[in-house]
Amino acid sequence: MISVSIIGAGNVANHLLKVFDKTEAVSVKQWYSRDISKISSFKNKVSITDNLLELKEADIYIIAVSDDAIATVSKALPFENRLVVHTSGSVSIYDLDKKNKRGVFYPLQTFSKDAKVDFKNIPICIETIGKKNYPLLKSLAEAISNKVYKINPDQRKTLHLAAVFVNNFTNQLYRVAHEITESEGVEFDILKPLILETAKKVQNLSPYMAQTGPAKRNDKKTIKKHLKQLENEHHKDIYNLLTNSIKKTHGR
Amino acid sequence: MISVSIIGAGNVANHLLKVFDKTEAVSVKQWYSRDISKISSFKNKVSITDNLLELKEADIYIIAVSDDAIATVSKALPFENRLVVHTSGSVSIYDLDKKNKRGVFYPLQTFSKDAKVDFKNIPICIETIGKKNYPLLKSLAEAISNKVYKINPDQRKTLHLAAVFVNNFTNQLYRVAHEITESEGVEFDILKPLILETAKKVQNLSPYMAQTGPAKRNDKKTIKKHLKQLENEHHKDIYNLLTNSIKKTHGR
Repeated sequence: MISVSIIGAGNVANHLLKVFDKTEAVSVKQWYSRDISKISSFKNKVSITDNLLELKEADIYIIAVSDDAIATVSKALPFENRLVVHTSGSVSIYDLDKKNKRGVFYPLQTFSKDAKVDFKNIPICIETIGKKNYPLLKSLAEAISNKVYKINPDQRKTLHLAAVFVNNFTNQLYRVAHEITESEGVEFDILKPLILETAKKVQNLSPYMAQTGPAKRNDKKTIKKHLKQLENEHHKDIYNLLTNSIKKTHGR
Repeated sequence: MISVSIIGAGNVANHLLKVFDKTEAVSVKQWYSRDISKISSFKNKVSITDNLLELKEADIYIIAVSDDAIATVSKALPFENRLVVHTSGSVSIYDLDKKNKRGVFYPLQTFSKDAKVDFKNIPICIETIGKKNYPLLKSLAEAISNKVYKINPDQRKTLHLAAVFVNNFTNQLYRVAHEITESEGVEFDILKPLILETAKKVQNLSPYMAQTGPAKRNDKKTIKKHLKQLENEHHKDIYNLLTNSIKKTHGR
């Protein structure tokens, strides 16, 4: 049994609490939030506190707070020589105070507050300073996920950056499509199955192989028509840049 | 029972044949391809031909050929006053020869050759010239899909354009992420669950509400770090343009 204390009350902290709570190999020792009202509804399920000095001994402390607060919180911990990890994709492992053993426990997923999450399929990328601390963190990750990856700091940086492309930027393309359809009185809903299928397609096929459309075919007539259709200059810029990007990839 | 003949042997034609074949309310009268070898493996299932002059009477003729060939094929049909439709998102209904009744039967989905397709969830957008021909085409669409939309020419144009954003451009972002991870020796696979979740999220939430990340938060430190990390100028351009797009959308 691995005992864990969670520090923070955001989406990641909430989802971790839920999955640990139903995982036999893991017990949640304590949950800390500086704002106790955020977690008080869980007080019958888990021991809660808003005082770092009250933190009891646990095998692993997971700091799941905003990136900017990680260093400060790790410095404020009233103990040393225990395993302390953060969950951020972009904060260095060295930002954790060196009085404790340090690690990173980075679940590569987008967490919404209410959406159900199946942790078994969420990649968990782990890092430790010193090999000794690795097996325990790995056991914790494997208790909740089938996809555990040992990575190094550079690889985490790369993943975090690539995630911005496939998550934030992709979502912004959905947004632009929403703007385009809305402005012509067309239901955005009609595009939803295509959105889902586009994401499913690359689960088994490389994005290179999955590509289709006017840019890949270098279908100048359609591209010209589309550019004429777009009224918003900003949408035009995106169309041009990504059309050229596809052409480049496919040697057009 | 609606009788249908399919003209063409590409992905759309293949998928339509399969779904009609298992739909009780529809019978496939004939399948035409100018290259008979492409469809000859189906000759025990359906009557095939490579000669337009051999086309027998059917309720609806579906021209599922490349955009450029639609006008020519419709002109070459050896009959008149029957219902002839094409399946393209971008070709005008008026490109069909006017000797026949004309319509559009546009399934808004990306079709791969081998991927299984659940037509029940594929939006089928239909258009006819003249109200009289609409009910028959609607019946055909409803026989295979739960999502049938009556649209006009402008709306189809808009959908086709928006589809380029959510399908081709999104897929290119996946490709860029593949390039970024590959160049650092990181498995692209780690991103796949995030890709899927990003698409799932907007099935119930608007893209506006679903947005997260450094651009939305206007987290200048992370944006600067990412730009420094990107070695490829072209990737940088995409990062800048879409970051600014998100900032604009969210009033940053």
